[in-house]
Amino acid sequence: MDEFEIIKKYFSKLTLNNQSSLELNDDIFFDKSKKLAVSVDTYVEGTHFIDFKNPELVIKKIIRSSISDLICKGVYPKYYFISGSGNERSFTKNNLKKISNSLNEEQDRYSIYLCGGDTVFSNRLSFTITSIGFSDSVILRNKAKNNDDIYVTGNLGDSFIGLKVLKKKINLNKKLTKYFKKKYFLPDLSIRLTKKLLSFANTSIDISDGLITDLEKLINKQKLSYKLYLKNIPISKSLKKLIDKKRINKISCVSRGDDYQILFTASPSKSRIIYKTGKSLGIKISKIGKISSQFKKSQIIDEKNEIIALKNKGYYHRF
Amino acid sequence: MDEFEIIKKYFSKLTLNNQSSLELNDDIFFDKSKKLAVSVDTYVEGTHFIDFKNPELVIKKIIRSSISDLICKGVYPKYYFISGSGNERSFTKNNLKKISNSLNEEQDRYSIYLCGGDTVFSNRLSFTITSIGFSDSVILRNKAKNNDDIYVTGNLGDSFIGLKVLKKKINLNKKLTKYFKKKYFLPDLSIRLTKKLLSFANTSIDISDGLITDLEKLINKQKLSYKLYLKNIPISKSLKKLIDKKRINKISCVSRGDDYQILFTASPSKSRIIYKTGKSLGIKISKIGKISSQFKKSQIIDEKNEIIALKNKGYYHRF
Repeated sequence: MDEFEIIKKYFSKLTLNNQSSLELNDDIFFDKSKKLAVSVDTYVEGTHFIDFKNPELVIKKIIRSSISDLICKGVYPKYYFISGSGNERSFTKNNLKKISNSLNEEQDRYSIYLCGGDTVFSNRLSFTITSIGFSDSVILRNKAKNNDDIYVTGNLGDSFIGLKVLKKKINLNKKLTKYFKKKYFLPDLSIRLTKKLLSFANTSIDISDGLITDLEKLINKQKLSYKLYLKNIPISKSLKKLIDKKRINKISCVSRGDDYQILFTASPSKSRIIYKTGKSLGIKISKIGKISSQFKKSQIIDEKNEIIALKNKGYYHRF
Repeated sequence: MDEFEIIKKYFSKLTLNNQSSLELNDDIFFDKSKKLAVSVDTYVEGTHFIDFKNPELVIKKIIRSSISDLICKGVYPKYYFISGSGNERSFTKNNLKKISNSLNEEQDRYSIYLCGGDTVFSNRLSFTITSIGFSDSVILRNKAKNNDDIYVTGNLGDSFIGLKVLKKKINLNKKLTKYFKKKYFLPDLSIRLTKKLLSFANTSIDISDGLITDLEKLINKQKLSYKLYLKNIPISKSLKKLIDKKRINKISCVSRGDDYQILFTASPSKSRIIYKTGKSLGIKISKIGKISSQFKKSQIIDEKNEIIALKNKGYYHRF
């Protein structure tokens, strides 16, 4: 059973069956009457981050990952709680100082502040971050409309190359090594887009598991299919260099996750205002595909206009 | 460094320095403007619970421990989030079913509901519970007044005996074994007292670490001392039996923690209304000591009216 099946089978029945609950089928909880949005995520060493050799970077990444859940739904994060489980090797004075400094920098960057948490002893290092924000409304999953365009912010794939670099699975020059490692640890969150999103996005999600996986999560209860155009999927100049040199091919790296860009759908009539907003905020927004009830099945179209075969029961979970 | 020192040194500076923040020196966070109270706690196998042989009981205990933080501050818990880190041995279908059933029973008992969470893979089993409630005000730490009486709800010490039974450090008959194990796993929360507490308690805390440790936490920023009378510390009939039979002595078991009773102080003028409230709600409330700025130092007085010597720099952290 994957996480989704576990939730559905055993835990959906425990939610309050009303408007305020998203019935666990979303990345955040929203209490409409209290205008309260909450995101809770756990990050385990070895699963969600490789190791704790760079505590200052790991902490920044998990904070960004947590508040990204709120931002992509149109909610500004206001405060957060951090629970750390670890041992004295993880929580040395030196590391605590680094953690504290990192949190301080993220607080300044995103206007959030620490409200509490817990530190407990465990031989397995993990952190649970609870992020809270307030908003009159939020953008939900499964609200894509027929004929919607599919958009994504920023660039995809850099984080995956950063991970390959860290795992020593690819060898790059110093400059590129630095660039991709930074992209892995410090995703660019499109926080300035937060409120604007509410005015044009029908449905949205942040890309943490990967473009295709998250797109499928986004419309998992809808009878809709999608077409994605590989050539329109935005990548950085640095990643383009690697692709041009045939060090890697595009399809194998743009849907590997950890991008923390916002994936959303919107009516074709919003196209102009979306590009205009992106331009005025200095945020790259790319139209990468189309939602439709008319497509026979979901497809990814490559640069030669050929359909990329779908694996795993018609789904790409991981390429 | 203990948890308190870690928080003070590295993390206090990260909180917003205003009324809404309790500056991490409390068990909950309270946002006065939003009337929002939040408690976040992590429970690790081997530290906070022995093992996961009885998932249905472990889950109930940690849910009660989490909402106890809100209840003791005068806040009804409304909803909760649960993040579980574990492996396939912990999260078998059978265990998930038990977890789900337990949560369902606790939801009915305490009028709370599940709003989200996370399940992640880890070889070390742990849970982080975020509990949320709403209240116009909360009872804070460090608000004891000179001459306040010290009160506690329910009985103390049963949970510690339950732990000894589970660890096979004491051998009791079947009936007592069952009784104390139940008290360890299923603490009686005084939820019916929640709102009333706001009307008479000056300061309050729930007893999780132990009577003395938590009493000292409760007034850790105040220039006040306390006198506790061992004879007035409430115990169950079952525990009294063990003490009468000299299987254990009282002082060695009433401050060992995991009681989840409410410890609070109140003006002597409130004494009548407190006892009356307790009687009408069917909640045992005992006056166990006194707060004063006049006492030279904090003392525990035994049944023979003698002072029990204080260890560890004048403090009993654990007896």
